[in-house]
Amino acid sequence: MARGWWSGGAQRGDAARLEAFSDGVLAIAITLLILEVRVEPEEGESLAHALGHAMPQIVAYAASFLQIGIMWANHHALFRTVRQVDQILLLANLLLLGFVSFLPLPTRLVAEHTAGADGRTAMLLYGGTLTACAVMFNAIWWRLERAGLLLESIDAAFRRDVGIRYVIGVFGYLVATLLCLIAPWLTLLATALLALVFVLGPSPRPATAAL
Amino acid sequence: MARGWWSGGAQRGDAARLEAFSDGVLAIAITLLILEVRVEPEEGESLAHALGHAMPQIVAYAASFLQIGIMWANHHALFRTVRQVDQILLLANLLLLGFVSFLPLPTRLVAEHTAGADGRTAMLLYGGTLTACAVMFNAIWWRLERAGLLLESIDAAFRRDVGIRYVIGVFGYLVATLLCLIAPWLTLLATALLALVFVLGPSPRPATAAL
Amino acid sequence: MARGWWSGGAQRGDAARLEAFSDGVLAIAITLLILEVRVEPEEGESLAHALGHAMPQIVAYAASFLQIGIMWANHHALFRTVRQVDQILLLANLLLLGFVSFLPLPTRLVAEHTAGADGRTAMLLYGGTLTACAVMFNAIWWRLERAGLLLESIDAAFRRDVGIRYVIGVFGYLVATLLCLIAPWLTLLATALLALVFVLGPSPRPATAAL
Amino acid sequence: MARGWWSGGAQRGDAARLEAFSDGVLAIAITLLILEVRVEPEEGESLAHALGHAMPQIVAYAASFLQIGIMWANHHALFRTVRQVDQILLLANLLLLGFVSFLPLPTRLVAEHTAGADGRTAMLLYGGTLTACAVMFNAIWWRLERAGLLLESIDAAFRRDVGIRYVIGVFGYLVATLLCLIAPWLTLLATALLALVFVLGPSPRPATAAL
Repeated sequence: MARGWWSGGAQRGDAARLEAFSDGVLAIAITLLILEVRVEPEEGESLAHALGHAMPQIVAYAASFLQIGIMWANHHALFRTVRQVDQILLLANLLLLGFVSFLPLPTRLVAEHTAGADGRTAMLLYGGTLTACAVMFNAIWWRLERAGLLLESIDAAFRRDVGIRYVIGVFGYLVATLLCLIAPWLTLLATALLALVFVLGPSPRPATAAL
Repeated sequence: MARGWWSGGAQRGDAARLEAFSDGVLAIAITLLILEVRVEPEEGESLAHALGHAMPQIVAYAASFLQIGIMWANHHALFRTVRQVDQILLLANLLLLGFVSFLPLPTRLVAEHTAGADGRTAMLLYGGTLTACAVMFNAIWWRLERAGLLLESIDAAFRRDVGIRYVIGVFGYLVATLLCLIAPWLTLLATALLALVFVLGPSPRPATAAL
Repeated sequence: MARGWWSGGAQRGDAARLEAFSDGVLAIAITLLILEVRVEPEEGESLAHALGHAMPQIVAYAASFLQIGIMWANHHALFRTVRQVDQILLLANLLLLGFVSFLPLPTRLVAEHTAGADGRTAMLLYGGTLTACAVMFNAIWWRLERAGLLLESIDAAFRRDVGIRYVIGVFGYLVATLLCLIAPWLTLLATALLALVFVLGPSPRPATAAL
Repeated sequence: MARGWWSGGAQRGDAARLEAFSDGVLAIAITLLILEVRVEPEEGESLAHALGHAMPQIVAYAASFLQIGIMWANHHALFRTVRQVDQILLLANLLLLGFVSFLPLPTRLVAEHTAGADGRTAMLLYGGTLTACAVMFNAIWWRLERAGLLLESIDAAFRRDVGIRYVIGVFGYLVATLLCLIAPWLTLLATALLALVFVLGPSPRPATAAL
């Protein structure tokens, strides 16, 4: 594949702009989530009661807010290792952003359909979308490694750690998604725990201070 | 807790990116508010009359616009003191952004339910959300101080002043919230005054020009 | 008034962040406009016919897009003259952003009410919002001049030219608004022409290349 | 035309800000698309079934996400060649952003009207909007060349290649639009292929590493 218009020249600046664009999309997706939460008391119902009924919506809002927020942190950490971008990386990143931007839809479905077959369908779509995001993080990392787009200061041990971490992510989200076959709320809980482990747990040490 | 991937290396850049992401979320939340204001004349009603009826919505819009705008200013002033970020700070900031992004929902409820028990419920949620934001500002400051994440140029007097300021904020918003038990509009007025005092009133002097 | 937390220290950086936040709000407000345009054919109506009926909505969309786009350009040009910000300037800028963010509401009303008394009411609100923006540009400029917040390279001739320009803007938008008393579409046309004159017409020359 | 307020002074900074504003608008437009996708099962319909019915909406979402994402990449690549901006360029760029921001409307119509005369009308509007974007890219390039706004390092061969590329774009999108007269889905497929060719295919090499 031809190295194209996009990838020529001041590549570090390109990575910065790709990150800025991604930050914008993530910030918007996370903030749009609340637009889906609707609290409208029915005839004769008190607002306090209606808020109680809206709890599934508010829980789903909080869960997706956490997921996108932590994906942002991961995305930022990932792009700090990038020396250069190419068109394949651009497309992989665009797919990742597409799945994140898609999340408000399954979030709304999860809030509206909490039980039975529809509850399972909604959770499969929700967990599936998060799993697709985890797959795209792998794809981005794979492209960075294979096409030599990483900063030279990134050493082999760090690469191996990050690679393992991302593969675990895919399997973790896949298992969390399948838990909805037992009970839908298990998927919500498991994906939230996974996100917290990713941000609070041990993580690969950067090789150098210059990273 | 392990110092992780996120917190390694060029930390000042991390603080800048965290602030940029936060700015994005705040800018979006403040701009989305207007989407909740709906002016739809009923059969035979004039538009001028319908606009008169929409005044509670427009007042609520203006009040929340002011709150988010001044929170942005405070957030920016706060992050100018940051030398480095860690995962706890990241999560605390994410929680703050979550409460701010949540604000369009109570804003709409406050506009739709202006009297009686529902008016109180709506104002409790509105004031409670603002109080939660004030609590998170405290949590962020607490983490900055305890984990040694502040710039070295920040002196003890400045720290004490900021700490007191944030604690006063929590109590101020809590009292303002409880005023809705007397009359809902008192909460709207008191929170607006609090915000104006925070931006126009005396404030801790930065210790150095380099701050 | 005490020079506060906000205004201390690296002021040029503050101006840059205030501009970045404003850019975010303006970019979001301009992009949200399309959400108000709804094309829903009635029973038995063709889509082509429904699109024809939606022309007032599309014209209003285009007009507001132009207004916000050119306000962005003006805002950027204005902030290039800023050396330092203070709390009053911050509040004045927040008010300006509040009026711009409000614009989607009158834009929708103008599209829905095109004739008669309601058409006039809608246009008064639309033109009034744009006039309020012009007033806030004056307020910002006034604060910049009186509080000595301008870059030192800004000379007296430039100041005078900008001041006159902004005062003309207020009167121009005021007259354009009142034209709706003759016919609503005159306001839409006149405000669009005003915006084009502001961006394409002669303008004060910056005093120095370093501006 | 007078060289105005906007264009004086530190022009490279102006290009950067114009690009940042454009990035914001593009990031918002791409993220708003999902708000138009509505999955609401009818009485007695399962969610899985309703999701099946929503496939045209989801395909349209994915197609427009791809278009805006690749337009962002092109816009960024284009603005890397800019030395300076003027008011005409500003207006041309604003028109481009206006057409991109308009895209959520035809995207929704394409999802709702998939067959017959209405399907053709929707696709004509969708393809026509994309063609208008391609025309505006030409207009921006034309202004950059004619008004001497390009970086001096951009050589003649590069200019010729880019010029040809943009003209091909217009004709490509025009032909893709007209394909809807055979079958609406052909337009969706052809415009998606065009976008992929633009990002993955051969492209003009930048003349220098400093580009």
